[in-house]
Amino acid sequence: MQSYTECIPCFVRQAFDALCMVGSDERQRHRVLQRVLVEAARFPLDRPPPAMAQEIHRIIREELQNADPYAKIKDASTRIALDLAEEARGLIKASIEPFRMAVRFAIAGNIMDFALASAWDRLDLNNFIEKTRLYPLDDAAVGRLHRAVDAAQSILVLGDNCGETVFDRLLIEQMAGKRIHYAVKGAPVINDATLADAIAAGLDQVAELVENGSDAPGTLLEDCSEAFCELFDSVDLVIAKGQANYESLNSVARPVFFLTQVKCPVIGRDLDEPVGRWVIREHKGAGR
Amino acid sequence: MQSYTECIPCFVRQAFDALCMVGSDERQRHRVLQRVLVEAARFPLDRPPPAMAQEIHRIIREELQNADPYAKIKDASTRIALDLAEEARGLIKASIEPFRMAVRFAIAGNIMDFALASAWDRLDLNNFIEKTRLYPLDDAAVGRLHRAVDAAQSILVLGDNCGETVFDRLLIEQMAGKRIHYAVKGAPVINDATLADAIAAGLDQVAELVENGSDAPGTLLEDCSEAFCELFDSVDLVIAKGQANYESLNSVARPVFFLTQVKCPVIGRDLDEPVGRWVIREHKGAGR
Repeated sequence: MQSYTECIPCFVRQAFDALCMVGSDERQRHRVLQRVLVEAARFPLDRPPPAMAQEIHRIIREELQNADPYAKIKDASTRIALDLAEEARGLIKASIEPFRMAVRFAIAGNIMDFALASAWDRLDLNNFIEKTRLYPLDDAAVGRLHRAVDAAQSILVLGDNCGETVFDRLLIEQMAGKRIHYAVKGAPVINDATLADAIAAGLDQVAELVENGSDAPGTLLEDCSEAFCELFDSVDLVIAKGQANYESLNSVARPVFFLTQVKCPVIGRDLDEPVGRWVIREHKGAGR
Repeated sequence: MQSYTECIPCFVRQAFDALCMVGSDERQRHRVLQRVLVEAARFPLDRPPPAMAQEIHRIIREELQNADPYAKIKDASTRIALDLAEEARGLIKASIEPFRMAVRFAIAGNIMDFALASAWDRLDLNNFIEKTRLYPLDDAAVGRLHRAVDAAQSILVLGDNCGETVFDRLLIEQMAGKRIHYAVKGAPVINDATLADAIAAGLDQVAELVENGSDAPGTLLEDCSEAFCELFDSVDLVIAKGQANYESLNSVARPVFFLTQVKCPVIGRDLDEPVGRWVIREHKGAGR
């Protein structure tokens, strides 16, 4: 999807918040923001928001001379999620519809998103399990996803943030007998999971891990490796986690199931859903 | 006072909100925001925030080809305030300390600020009178202001927003026997009062109106007319309304009484007061 002028103040705010979050002094912040402002002025709105976020976080990493400024935050997210995983797995097992409960956790895990931390309630962990069980979710859409999983032999799950990955694993555990690939970023960007992060979260135990070759949030196919794009095109089913994946893939040729929380009004309008809603959206594709 | 990196996302957000508020299409918004981003990148942080706001609103007026995009909003504010004025005047008269109650209304009126509308509760008119009567305010500071008014022969009140002006009049009515000047902007900027706005609010009936010669919010002395600067230097007492006046005058040579609401964390830190607090701050000056 394209970007909108409404995204521009949000890009600048995200850059500032990111700088505060990863530790920076006023001079570093000013230098980074000056570059971000110039890039944002140049940014063509027909490109998806993750393309701007990629640019912002490249600038931050370069100016801070830190290849992975979110490393500690990512590790903490994974640790927190792993602490919750056993309880979650028990609830899934005990559920009369384990797949549906696993989908719930996979979407609930999407709240572990520090990129938009200034705008949303963060890690309200006390309520996490309770909310996961009870939050409204379109049962018919869960059913369609379940049937798509049953019909597929090969499935590619596009990961999103650290922490969230742990709950993706619980969903993958409900896909026994399938060949599962789990895609991670080719290099650190915000708190998105890389190969090392996914291994720390145990995803290598349930899926073949694949790097997408890109340091953009979401999945900008033109920025991904050829090998990744071939996999993306050839699998029977793609499940894409998180808002950035929706932003970058919502008009690709192949079908994709998107699982995300609606985190901003721009996406809300695009999906015709209110901010905060949990969404399973089946993109039918056009090219096949 | 200087600006901070924290102000930068706020500048961009304010520009976007202003564009939405005054009516604009996506292409206009993009053109304005591109120029604002470039100017914000160039903006030296040792300048006060109103200098950047001046730049932003010049760009908006130019691109929208509208010399006073807030005209309707300003008129509505004045009308709303005039509707409330009689009740307010009655409360002031009935008060055992009319000056103090008038100060309360003058600071309460500062909430009529559409520049920061995205961040604050706007015009919660149902509660306006009640809040005005009861909101915490430093009584000792009111006393100091009252004594300064009593001791002065000539007083310059620096106006701020339309609507707020009406309540400034109620305070000026408590300064009988003094020579009062009421300063307005030299040209429209945001919803700040100009000469025509002040006349519509009836300020000409209680004060000599004076234009400051500038289209910046607040009072950037280097941008004001010589005549205004002479008046500013020569009066016995200056009472400056609103946050932008504090931002632009908090380190001038002469003494100034600032009456404002704390509308952002940056000012909050500078004043050592929480956001939302009503403040009377006596600036002692250094140059006399």
